[in-house]
Amino acid sequence: MTLRVGVIGTGMIGQDHIRRLTQVLSAVEVVAVSDIDGARAAAVAPQGADVYAAAGDLIRSETVEAVVICSWGPAHEEQLLDCIAAGKPVFCEKPLVTTAAAALRVMEAEVAFGRRLVQVGFMRRFDADYRRLKATLDAGVLGAPLMFHSTHRNASVPEGLYTSDMPLNDTLVHDAYISRWLLNDEVTGVEVRVPRRSRRGGELRDPVVVLLHMGSGALVDVEISVNIAYGYDIRGEVSCEEGTASLPLRPATVIRDIHGVRQPVPADWRERFIEAYDQEFREWIVAAAQGTATGPSTWDGYAATLVADAALRAAESGALEPVRMCQRPSLYGPTLEAAR
Amino acid sequence: MTLRVGVIGTGMIGQDHIRRLTQVLSAVEVVAVSDIDGARAAAVAPQGADVYAAAGDLIRSETVEAVVICSWGPAHEEQLLDCIAAGKPVFCEKPLVTTAAAALRVMEAEVAFGRRLVQVGFMRRFDADYRRLKATLDAGVLGAPLMFHSTHRNASVPEGLYTSDMPLNDTLVHDAYISRWLLNDEVTGVEVRVPRRSRRGGELRDPVVVLLHMGSGALVDVEISVNIAYGYDIRGEVSCEEGTASLPLRPATVIRDIHGVRQPVPADWRERFIEAYDQEFREWIVAAAQGTATGPSTWDGYAATLVADAALRAAESGALEPVRMCQRPSLYGPTLEAAR
Amino acid sequence: MTLRVGVIGTGMIGQDHIRRLTQVLSAVEVVAVSDIDGARAAAVAPQGADVYAAAGDLIRSETVEAVVICSWGPAHEEQLLDCIAAGKPVFCEKPLVTTAAAALRVMEAEVAFGRRLVQVGFMRRFDADYRRLKATLDAGVLGAPLMFHSTHRNASVPEGLYTSDMPLNDTLVHDAYISRWLLNDEVTGVEVRVPRRSRRGGELRDPVVVLLHMGSGALVDVEISVNIAYGYDIRGEVSCEEGTASLPLRPATVIRDIHGVRQPVPADWRERFIEAYDQEFREWIVAAAQGTATGPSTWDGYAATLVADAALRAAESGALEPVRMCQRPSLYGPTLEAAR
Amino acid sequence: MTLRVGVIGTGMIGQDHIRRLTQVLSAVEVVAVSDIDGARAAAVAPQGADVYAAAGDLIRSETVEAVVICSWGPAHEEQLLDCIAAGKPVFCEKPLVTTAAAALRVMEAEVAFGRRLVQVGFMRRFDADYRRLKATLDAGVLGAPLMFHSTHRNASVPEGLYTSDMPLNDTLVHDAYISRWLLNDEVTGVEVRVPRRSRRGGELRDPVVVLLHMGSGALVDVEISVNIAYGYDIRGEVSCEEGTASLPLRPATVIRDIHGVRQPVPADWRERFIEAYDQEFREWIVAAAQGTATGPSTWDGYAATLVADAALRAAESGALEPVRMCQRPSLYGPTLEAAR
Repeated sequence: MTLRVGVIGTGMIGQDHIRRLTQVLSAVEVVAVSDIDGARAAAVAPQGADVYAAAGDLIRSETVEAVVICSWGPAHEEQLLDCIAAGKPVFCEKPLVTTAAAALRVMEAEVAFGRRLVQVGFMRRFDADYRRLKATLDAGVLGAPLMFHSTHRNASVPEGLYTSDMPLNDTLVHDAYISRWLLNDEVTGVEVRVPRRSRRGGELRDPVVVLLHMGSGALVDVEISVNIAYGYDIRGEVSCEEGTASLPLRPATVIRDIHGVRQPVPADWRERFIEAYDQEFREWIVAAAQGTATGPSTWDGYAATLVADAALRAAESGALEPVRMCQRPSLYGPTLEAAR
Repeated sequence: MTLRVGVIGTGMIGQDHIRRLTQVLSAVEVVAVSDIDGARAAAVAPQGADVYAAAGDLIRSETVEAVVICSWGPAHEEQLLDCIAAGKPVFCEKPLVTTAAAALRVMEAEVAFGRRLVQVGFMRRFDADYRRLKATLDAGVLGAPLMFHSTHRNASVPEGLYTSDMPLNDTLVHDAYISRWLLNDEVTGVEVRVPRRSRRGGELRDPVVVLLHMGSGALVDVEISVNIAYGYDIRGEVSCEEGTASLPLRPATVIRDIHGVRQPVPADWRERFIEAYDQEFREWIVAAAQGTATGPSTWDGYAATLVADAALRAAESGALEPVRMCQRPSLYGPTLEAAR
Repeated sequence: MTLRVGVIGTGMIGQDHIRRLTQVLSAVEVVAVSDIDGARAAAVAPQGADVYAAAGDLIRSETVEAVVICSWGPAHEEQLLDCIAAGKPVFCEKPLVTTAAAALRVMEAEVAFGRRLVQVGFMRRFDADYRRLKATLDAGVLGAPLMFHSTHRNASVPEGLYTSDMPLNDTLVHDAYISRWLLNDEVTGVEVRVPRRSRRGGELRDPVVVLLHMGSGALVDVEISVNIAYGYDIRGEVSCEEGTASLPLRPATVIRDIHGVRQPVPADWRERFIEAYDQEFREWIVAAAQGTATGPSTWDGYAATLVADAALRAAESGALEPVRMCQRPSLYGPTLEAAR
Repeated sequence: MTLRVGVIGTGMIGQDHIRRLTQVLSAVEVVAVSDIDGARAAAVAPQGADVYAAAGDLIRSETVEAVVICSWGPAHEEQLLDCIAAGKPVFCEKPLVTTAAAALRVMEAEVAFGRRLVQVGFMRRFDADYRRLKATLDAGVLGAPLMFHSTHRNASVPEGLYTSDMPLNDTLVHDAYISRWLLNDEVTGVEVRVPRRSRRGGELRDPVVVLLHMGSGALVDVEISVNIAYGYDIRGEVSCEEGTASLPLRPATVIRDIHGVRQPVPADWRERFIEAYDQEFREWIVAAAQGTATGPSTWDGYAATLVADAALRAAESGALEPVRMCQRPSLYGPTLEAAR
């Protein structure tokens, strides 16, 4: 009844997931660890866990029932294909892979296997606020969704490490994924507009406004501000035919003092989404114990790659850049037309 | 069509009302002014207005159609009786009078006159937030009101001038009046509790908690904090059988900055209630032009006096001090039993 | 000390302004009325007011000191030119005029006259919420404004009377004006996107999303939804370098009942902006009594015309349509570069 | 590393805790179950768990490392004493015991044992909102707490099962516990006021207002409404010398529809506090694995008993009923005077 997991990649996020799998969650244990830095892997491995030099060996180990991939993006494709070849459920941190071609190869392998094995780390879907928002929309009483206003603000980003492409190929993926999920829809085109630049980010392209054109005709506008100083602020409002539904403020103490009536804002994504990460793994463990996966799929990882590519093109061209996805394999659910 | 008004008392509040009557409101002009300080009266009188040494002469002047009393409390009784004797509508700043006996004498004179002439300056009734709150209650869909939580906070009070009696005989009158009006009810008893003292007010009895027992059995609890530093904060929630109704936050810009998501709080009662003062006089002018008064009446001023007296007794005794009002003259509306 | 006003046009809005000028505001009286429907003019004229068959005669009447124009748009140019020729202050309901060429002619006449005489009826600037928002921005502590998200929702629009052009040439003008004013900026280009259509409006182009590109580089996105059922909802958030500032919720009773914790939304623009209309005229009266005008100017009316034209072009072309304004006459304030 | 737990009492709450301990939490397993209804115990026992007829046998079983008591109140004393005799950590659902004398006997035994073993099920302390509220108070920037307004509303209570004593001896305990914890204080006296009765509860004494007088002089007022129809609404605001701190609204989707701008309210305590229950056990497991207990103690259970007794007396007498606690054993922390 306890899922035996191997973790590949023991950087910051890998270590956080090891902590989560060993200290927070039930019905799971970390039995193997691998990293290109063997010393680090050995240092962070839980007592009794095996340490592998090669990710492939961890994946094929008989003691490992399911795999968590936290290595860097370019390594994902091979590791995912190994997991599928071994028939083992795998949780893969974003990005799924780094090119559309690689996403198609992983998807082809999974479809050939015939059962979902891959879950991608888009954690917002497991956040209680987003789930309630989606339930409200799905109840249908507000009519069809026509617009989604998504706001994605970071207090700051690491100088030098965070480049002008990253709002579009790293930050935007969360808004794009959640838009597709909330609206039961696909992105068909992307536009990018670059407002007056914030002096806080130097030469960084910040903020940016992204318009996602959806298959249904719904329009998503995303404000991405990554240096806005005051906190990590994720907001969203869906405008429907007969009303709107929005994410609430985070539950923070209401203080009345000389600054007014006020509620603190989360400092960063850890504070904002820590429970979503826990829940994401909780549901993955249940699915993996049954030999499969749940939530964000290879298809969603593929879509994220295409949207990021289109966003980067749109920032250059100033035009509406189309997103042309392949036919959706039935493994990933009914077509949207059927679902709507 | 323009109401000719005489103003008695030209201190801070009198000057503010002169400004209001001459610069803000229509269908009214200030034609006479009186003050025990004749020089001050002359200095603040609008161009063309007569200046009277004696309040009684102003009241009896043929050019004066209606009177505004802003003198100090002990002078009110005689001035009110003069107005009633002259058959002239009169707006009287709070307190109506300073003793229950005086209130009864004014009431007797007005009843003998046979028409309402006196309006007391309880301005909250003219505040849009309180009016919407009452409309919600009167609509009846929440069921009967059972409790009212009233919060009355001042950022600070003038050191030395504001004494320990004043939360109970000066500040409380607003909460008591608005409770009676919101609930269509009368106060039948008063209890006072004194929590741990705020060090900000030195020896001042602050805060205090007052319980008003209403005729219907409804219970009102009032927090009075007069040195709470952060602002002037008036709040109120009525708990009914099937839900509650509350005053909203004041409409202040929502700022997101390093202090959180926040809205400034009003600094003082002027900022909070300036529109209520304007509206109070707007409706008084209409009524006075028809030879009568509207809103808070001599009866309400009488009730305020009794409640303040009971509150002061209750602070000493620690007991439930009864409020025993005389039979309500029909001039002041139907009995509460009939109204409910 | 009382401003003698003549009102041209006695339809719904004209009658409302006559009510305002006679019953609500001080220091003003309506001494003349004109309408192409003479019977209607006679019916709604205040007692003692003159009724003119021809607007020009009203404008030139010696008893008329200032003029309020509420006629239909195509009549405005001639009436404005007449007012300027007579040197009389004039309040003109929107639209100022219906073509850019006409706006230039009015502007030329006013500049030649040498003093502002024309005030245009963009009332949002006089709304307390917008004023506090602007004061917060102008204080500068949030850094430069980079984006403005403006939301403009109507519960419904009159079927048949409200056409698909009107979101862009009638509704948008308010958002465009307030964007220019809040940001101290000019619109340099307009884009329009049309999301999935609401079934509630039939063939009506609703909602629409408008992007206003500002001279500073700031980007404004406007959601216009004119059939959203739940109420009249005007919202706005300015994203700056170090935080944001937003319009608050309207002050409506907070009800807790089976529908949740809730506050009613205004039903229509009258309820939302009635105080702004009063304030708009209050300030106009003061300026007109001094022979001039304040607030929204001929320049603002000219800008509105250009933005509406560009928006209509943009809806057709799908492209970024430029807004090319003439050099700003010094009569209308310093250049923006100087102001910033 | 896995704590082996025995559960006594398998009614609704017992079953919920078994679910929590087996499905939600890590580092724990349920190895034994006992109930006076042996068939029910057998039916709900996890696979492999032993079923005991007698609670005492379960407590003394060598396979049981720690105990969870969910039996009815009158059985608690004996079971707690057995646990202490066996030196085993025990989580005891409220009430700790049903009389002050019993509480003293349990306390005496635990003190004699020399280490905390007992944790009482006051779950609010583990709720994130209350924790943030306390952290804000403890930071000290708002000055000393002077008043606490606590609101405790249930949509409804089971007719016939919920009696007029229960607001005071069952519901109030949560508010009393959290008041003591938030303010670092003890209750020294209790007053009860009974407002106009809600017709929704028939003859039930509902609502009630309770005043808790605290050792520091701080005053707590509690509104208990157990039939208020609209939802389960727990609110709290602490008034301090320089400001206040309050529980926030629960994070529910903000809906704009014909009912206004609104957020749903939790239906019941399960929905409101489910995460607090999880966290309560999470921290208990850590403490129990170390042979001790954390959070609410025998001392807190003793205080709850005294407050409930005083509240029942106060409802009868109408007077301030004193709460006289024994000297606080050092096992339960420093004296309040030292702590403040």
